[in-house]
Amino acid sequence: MSAAQVRVSSLHGAGGEVMDDLIRSLIVPRFAARSAGRIGLSAMDDGATIERPATGELVVTTDCHVVKPVFFPGGDIGRLAAAGTVNDLAVMGARPVAFTLGIILEEGFALEDLEKILDSFAEVLAEVDASLVGGDTKVMASGDVDGIILCATGFGIADRAVSDAELWEGDDVLITGTVGDHGMALLAAREEFRLSTRLVSDVAPLWSLLKPVLPMGVHAMKDPTRGGLAAALNEMARKSEACVEIDEASIPLRAEVAGLSDLLGISPLDVANEGKAVLVVDPQATGAILAALAAHPRGAQARRIGKVTRRYPGRVVMDTGIGGERFLDMPLGDPVPRIC
Amino acid sequence: MSAAQVRVSSLHGAGGEVMDDLIRSLIVPRFAARSAGRIGLSAMDDGATIERPATGELVVTTDCHVVKPVFFPGGDIGRLAAAGTVNDLAVMGARPVAFTLGIILEEGFALEDLEKILDSFAEVLAEVDASLVGGDTKVMASGDVDGIILCATGFGIADRAVSDAELWEGDDVLITGTVGDHGMALLAAREEFRLSTRLVSDVAPLWSLLKPVLPMGVHAMKDPTRGGLAAALNEMARKSEACVEIDEASIPLRAEVAGLSDLLGISPLDVANEGKAVLVVDPQATGAILAALAAHPRGAQARRIGKVTRRYPGRVVMDTGIGGERFLDMPLGDPVPRIC
Repeated sequence: MSAAQVRVSSLHGAGGEVMDDLIRSLIVPRFAARSAGRIGLSAMDDGATIERPATGELVVTTDCHVVKPVFFPGGDIGRLAAAGTVNDLAVMGARPVAFTLGIILEEGFALEDLEKILDSFAEVLAEVDASLVGGDTKVMASGDVDGIILCATGFGIADRAVSDAELWEGDDVLITGTVGDHGMALLAAREEFRLSTRLVSDVAPLWSLLKPVLPMGVHAMKDPTRGGLAAALNEMARKSEACVEIDEASIPLRAEVAGLSDLLGISPLDVANEGKAVLVVDPQATGAILAALAAHPRGAQARRIGKVTRRYPGRVVMDTGIGGERFLDMPLGDPVPRIC
Repeated sequence: MSAAQVRVSSLHGAGGEVMDDLIRSLIVPRFAARSAGRIGLSAMDDGATIERPATGELVVTTDCHVVKPVFFPGGDIGRLAAAGTVNDLAVMGARPVAFTLGIILEEGFALEDLEKILDSFAEVLAEVDASLVGGDTKVMASGDVDGIILCATGFGIADRAVSDAELWEGDDVLITGTVGDHGMALLAAREEFRLSTRLVSDVAPLWSLLKPVLPMGVHAMKDPTRGGLAAALNEMARKSEACVEIDEASIPLRAEVAGLSDLLGISPLDVANEGKAVLVVDPQATGAILAALAAHPRGAQARRIGKVTRRYPGRVVMDTGIGGERFLDMPLGDPVPRIC
């Protein structure tokens, strides 16, 4: 089936022959090679089975993506939905196993674009060796929804799931790389700005980066997506009633991100990352963990950015240089709508 | 928090303080009483854990709901999303255990309505004793999405999952009750018709109805949602390369549904049901299974509607009375957009 110039019609989401064809021709072939259990995607049954693990904890996570534009520098909504869900599992210490995908389409959406998006989603799942086992497709009239929305659910297995609420006094706080790339790349690409930059989103799955360090002394992890590093650190500090003290100068930042940040008056610490993780670790293990992260292409700029103390329980304090210091507050919201 | 007159703003989906408040005040209190594992909804972590079952098969299913109107005779989108997902698990023979919920909101959506919808969702989960363990909330500008979309994922455990593709020659085909109620109730309620009827949707969770009959000789099950009974029977016949022969007169139909069907020229067999299941069973067990179904309020009108033969493999044949017969084809799509 050549999908070029062919567009989604309301029948593609209507439960009959046309939807059956769409799923059978566009979705199943991209994902049928991998199965997580006896009844998989190609069975097109009411649900799917996942093999029951012999040990460990089952971990589940759901993310919906409404990003605009759908294709952006460095990725698209398919890569974002898959990587975002993989990363929520990865920061829980869980190996990604099986996924489901809800797809909401605007009538008239180009099938060619849907194919590209499904390819991106499939590419990420193939990288982490996980299966798509089920999903649902709905079509809404043009005017009732803008473009495409994806809701992905991921199932994984952890030896013991890693919480984001196990911060202990004396722990070190690490970041796996540069901050603000996704949010600033999206902002720059928006029609209202149309800035010409070389910035690309960092959207990428982090399982292969984080898996090796799990047994090395990791106490807590979180991926700083919506709300950025500021939101992630504040959530972690609150939950553990611990103080996170960070050193602004140590936070890795691309020059383009810093420049855009100055231009637009938006802090790079408040915008979404889609290929980074915050790790809170045993200080004895910091050196080994940083070395292991740096050995991976997606962790080449990993740094220690701070530590856990008891100074202001539940708050994040940032050393701004030359003796200055301020609270880094939870942002009210991400300054960029439809960032992910 | 009194939510009356308060409306959703873009900040409610933006990952910061305002979204945190929404989840903490509106969502967590409704679902926190039940937990399926060590890290549950109230942890508000990147994911949740589900206790690993000692035996059985894990079953997963995802459904997205875009129904319009959001509140309809007999239910609302919250009840629909929960029951729809419970039913996909139930027809797989799986006990519902844990759910995640993706919520896409239009900016300006009334928080009071969101609360009602969450109450409906919670009521169904409480009935089947399942937990909400995670989710995601996104807000889109008015004009980018119409109202509210829910994507629910359900996770259950089956002794051995029931497929929809195990039809054997000689099996009986049963339906648990009247057909077409949801689709026709929605149609009648649509602004373009505004018909005054007493019709209500059949939307209801079916786990307590189907659980007792699972060990009694059930070979295959399916819930006839989008595309109606016609789509469900055709899918089942195709997958098993079996012929399903049904008797039109035996299909339970409310008088109002039959009347509306004549008026609008839409077959009640082509529109969605949200509280019914098709069972294909060992003919030796038909009597006992029908008796067990009829003992439940949601199965009071259960009937045998046909049998599995070898006459036309992959097709559904309907006896239309006085010696007449025709193929009941797979509908191209549900005649009612945004029916579920």
